[in-house]
Amino acid sequence: MIPVSEFFPIWNSLSAAQKQRLEGAAVKKYAPAGTLLHNGSDDCMGLLLIASGQLRIYTTSDDGREITLYRLLERDICLFSASCMLHSVQFELQVSAERDTEFWLISSEAYGTIMKESAPLANFTNSIMASRFTEVMWLMDQLLWKRMDQRIAKFLLEEAALDDSNTLRLTHEAIANHLGTAREVVTRMLKYFQSEGAVKLSRGTIEILDSERLERMSE
Amino acid sequence: MIPVSEFFPIWNSLSAAQKQRLEGAAVKKYAPAGTLLHNGSDDCMGLLLIASGQLRIYTTSDDGREITLYRLLERDICLFSASCMLHSVQFELQVSAERDTEFWLISSEAYGTIMKESAPLANFTNSIMASRFTEVMWLMDQLLWKRMDQRIAKFLLEEAALDDSNTLRLTHEAIANHLGTAREVVTRMLKYFQSEGAVKLSRGTIEILDSERLERMSE
Repeated sequence: MIPVSEFFPIWNSLSAAQKQRLEGAAVKKYAPAGTLLHNGSDDCMGLLLIASGQLRIYTTSDDGREITLYRLLERDICLFSASCMLHSVQFELQVSAERDTEFWLISSEAYGTIMKESAPLANFTNSIMASRFTEVMWLMDQLLWKRMDQRIAKFLLEEAALDDSNTLRLTHEAIANHLGTAREVVTRMLKYFQSEGAVKLSRGTIEILDSERLERMSE
Repeated sequence: MIPVSEFFPIWNSLSAAQKQRLEGAAVKKYAPAGTLLHNGSDDCMGLLLIASGQLRIYTTSDDGREITLYRLLERDICLFSASCMLHSVQFELQVSAERDTEFWLISSEAYGTIMKESAPLANFTNSIMASRFTEVMWLMDQLLWKRMDQRIAKFLLEEAALDDSNTLRLTHEAIANHLGTAREVVTRMLKYFQSEGAVKLSRGTIEILDSERLERMSE
């Protein structure tokens, strides 16, 4: 498994004692695909350092609709599963494993204590938050100014890149939950994409036939 | 003018030299209402400590549409006008003065240098970013799951609270730019509110007649 030190580009700016405390606090964990790892303010498990796998960070409406905010992959750090550590974070996210995921878990207390005394760790944490803020602002831009056909086309291309395959095992419902829209909207759009020869729909899968065409549709 | 020290709850955790450098770097500034203070990545003026007045932080689409992300008032700190200091911030915002505004300007270099060595200042900066993140997530929630009638009703009530007046001098175009929608949508909704007796529309002003009714409409 990727060692804890490799997650922190500022590792050499930490004192020997701080390094030891961070490593000592890290616990190896495994979550099979589908596990809900963090659910809003109900829990504050700590930081997740992703050694392998894929996490989905999303938010839900009162009536259960969902939208994906971003994904975290190998070598990423999930910060908002330790949001109790950041008192000014007053919003709720869900974190689930999209693939079988191995990670180090560092408790919010341990991390928060070291961050309080280490400027390098505090600044690094700041840069993680800024990266996530950037992802959310990108999504906001999409929501505000892009049409749903462009968003669905872009989503299919991203999924194909993540999976390294042109055959996607995704229900229309799942796509709707990623994009914060209704299943009917997704179904209608996919049928249109199929009529244009960009995809082929089968039971439970979507095959990308013409990714250049999909690329143009996403613009 | 509010002294620089009062903007930083962690002031007493700074060294004498750091305090002196922060105070020494702060320059008194004044921007009349309507001034564009920061425009995306074109500039990196620094942090703004608002002594009086009101700033509007917004984002624009390629074709010039706008949406207000949040407002900053007296005693708030505007961080993203120093976004070059935070290398992981990769999005563009605009900052303009909505009222005559007095502020301290601290250059990104001066602030960044102290933040690099001071854990308390880095953690405080972190908490400012987390607060802004919270505002943007609130807006995202509104955009995703609320209807436009609810958003306009809520916006009118917030404006009345900010101005401490039930007569708002706001064009329909301005409201559309706050909410990221088209002027026609705002006009249609305001006419509906008027027909319900909640507001009275005149040339250039909107008078709130029944704020309880508007409150119910916003829910």
